[in-house]
Amino acid sequence: MTLTVPETPYVAIELGTLQANIARAADAARSAGIALRPHVKTHKIIEIARMQEAAGVLGLTVATLGEAEVFVASGFTDVMIAYPLWLTPVKAQRLAALLDHSTIRLGIDSVAAGKRLSELLGGRASHVELVIEVDSGHHRSGISPDSVAELASQLLNMGLQIAGCFTFPGHSYALDGRAAAARDEAVALATARQQLEFLGLADMLMVSGGSTPSLAEADASVVTEQRPGVYVFNDAQQLELGSCGWDDIALTVQGTVVSVRGNRVIVDAGSKALGADKAPYATGYGRIQGFPDARIVALSEHHATIEFAGEKNIPVVGDVLSVIPNHVCNTVNLADEVFVFDRGALVDRWKVAARGKNS
Amino acid sequence: MTLTVPETPYVAIELGTLQANIARAADAARSAGIALRPHVKTHKIIEIARMQEAAGVLGLTVATLGEAEVFVASGFTDVMIAYPLWLTPVKAQRLAALLDHSTIRLGIDSVAAGKRLSELLGGRASHVELVIEVDSGHHRSGISPDSVAELASQLLNMGLQIAGCFTFPGHSYALDGRAAAARDEAVALATARQQLEFLGLADMLMVSGGSTPSLAEADASVVTEQRPGVYVFNDAQQLELGSCGWDDIALTVQGTVVSVRGNRVIVDAGSKALGADKAPYATGYGRIQGFPDARIVALSEHHATIEFAGEKNIPVVGDVLSVIPNHVCNTVNLADEVFVFDRGALVDRWKVAARGKNS
Repeated sequence: MTLTVPETPYVAIELGTLQANIARAADAARSAGIALRPHVKTHKIIEIARMQEAAGVLGLTVATLGEAEVFVASGFTDVMIAYPLWLTPVKAQRLAALLDHSTIRLGIDSVAAGKRLSELLGGRASHVELVIEVDSGHHRSGISPDSVAELASQLLNMGLQIAGCFTFPGHSYALDGRAAAARDEAVALATARQQLEFLGLADMLMVSGGSTPSLAEADASVVTEQRPGVYVFNDAQQLELGSCGWDDIALTVQGTVVSVRGNRVIVDAGSKALGADKAPYATGYGRIQGFPDARIVALSEHHATIEFAGEKNIPVVGDVLSVIPNHVCNTVNLADEVFVFDRGALVDRWKVAARGKNS
Repeated sequence: MTLTVPETPYVAIELGTLQANIARAADAARSAGIALRPHVKTHKIIEIARMQEAAGVLGLTVATLGEAEVFVASGFTDVMIAYPLWLTPVKAQRLAALLDHSTIRLGIDSVAAGKRLSELLGGRASHVELVIEVDSGHHRSGISPDSVAELASQLLNMGLQIAGCFTFPGHSYALDGRAAAARDEAVALATARQQLEFLGLADMLMVSGGSTPSLAEADASVVTEQRPGVYVFNDAQQLELGSCGWDDIALTVQGTVVSVRGNRVIVDAGSKALGADKAPYATGYGRIQGFPDARIVALSEHHATIEFAGEKNIPVVGDVLSVIPNHVCNTVNLADEVFVFDRGALVDRWKVAARGKNS
């Protein structure tokens, strides 16, 4: 393998920061008595999943069958698909193939999906460990926690297996929203758990929560495991939400300054390298490492337009800047490979093995 | 080549609509007496560039060296890199290699980039046809039209070749902004052209403008060619700006309904399939073909949350919807291949040959 620093724009990972982020979350989870089942949709990289495994995890979380296939093929044997899949005959075959090599936990939030699973997988349907998705306030997929007993009893009547319940407290992605979202998560999952216990499903119940912003606030008296993803890298969203500091940023997109007008600087890392995410609370389309007052005020496919505060210390054409993307999961999914640095020296390149595995 | 309709989410192209969009723009350009140099960053697909060529184009436009390499390798011999590249030794080598097979026009907006080109390419620098970028109101890269003579004379003094001027009237991407942006484009390019003519560069000057929204409004007395990209597919942005109709949408992302709560429906096409673009004027994160009143009110990586107007005719789990992305250039760049349909029948699959070629 040749190791040459590539042309900009490219994704750079700082190994020491990545390792520290993984270790810190693993330690915190251990102290809190909550297991980790990290969401690997963030990185989609086998090498990083192995680092997470070595630090201590219960299993992995993925969003799609395609991601599950990549990680199971690399030897991971306990994978949760935290998504209410609607199976087709082809997807059912793929799910059955995964069962030969791994424990598969699958999100579900409807009777219809249970019927579909039974019809398409026949006797093997009961080998899938179903995890009921509840809505804790993000209002995406997931049912009301009060309806868990009703759905669970219908699934049990079909001969299906229920392993527990989960939620994604995605409303933690709001300024001052982290603690409140963790409380909502605990209330919703406590209700869901109670409803499952009422049906006699008390043993070994999986009660799964977690997002990176709400991670530190999780209620260990309710959740048994957490599924954070972004914490391995962090990003401008986490920075602006206050769930990480500048030194915890492990991933940047390296971009070259190609044009300068006064305090406006154009860098060659645009939405095709960074992703176009801009949450309502975001102060721009990303941040610049070393320039806390600079803001990306506009983003085209190959141009980030950065405004610097004042006219001093403005970069010049040819300078390379470290751009911190807003939402790192979408950034990684744009790259075929990432470049790994250790204190400035390029030490490795990793394939984004599950890039584009959306189905 | 096996032709099987893939699992959702996937990119679907309707061949007849694509052909009609290409023919309509070619006819309009011919009628207006303006040549077309379509921007292939939108589709990154060889087969579509060949269709554009057959309909009549002067050459192609790309944004990066990597895109230029893909299209030149497929036999295209007049390529404009509409971007103020900052050359490294590696990029200079790659540029020189392209010159062996194609006319290369290159955007420039600084003396520094000219010096860099001269230093790194030596005698071959004068083979690159430089095109000066001017800012017509989008305030991204590009200089003031009034400064064109000054930059041009310095570049000429270095022995470099100037082929003309160009602008991207990106402020056409605003409600009611199309005609005004076309006027700004004409004023800026007329000034730039005048300054170049003053230097004696009157013959065969390339005066290049164009964005899809401003296409129909271009001033043929000023511009010699146009570089629209999105018009081949159109997208929700063009629909909401009024520069296309519903029947002109040639590309959709096919997504399966996985969860329904009242009039809120979750489809498995999220930001990793659609892109996360949401312009200030956008009414949501995309539109749904056949449901003009529905809006994508939230977008996660694998969930589009769609609100339907009223409670009637709400799709059910398992239904497949045609999602029209906001910004199709970023959508295509997420896919390794696209699936081509002719009146409902799958007839081809095309590789997104320049996917991820950002550098």
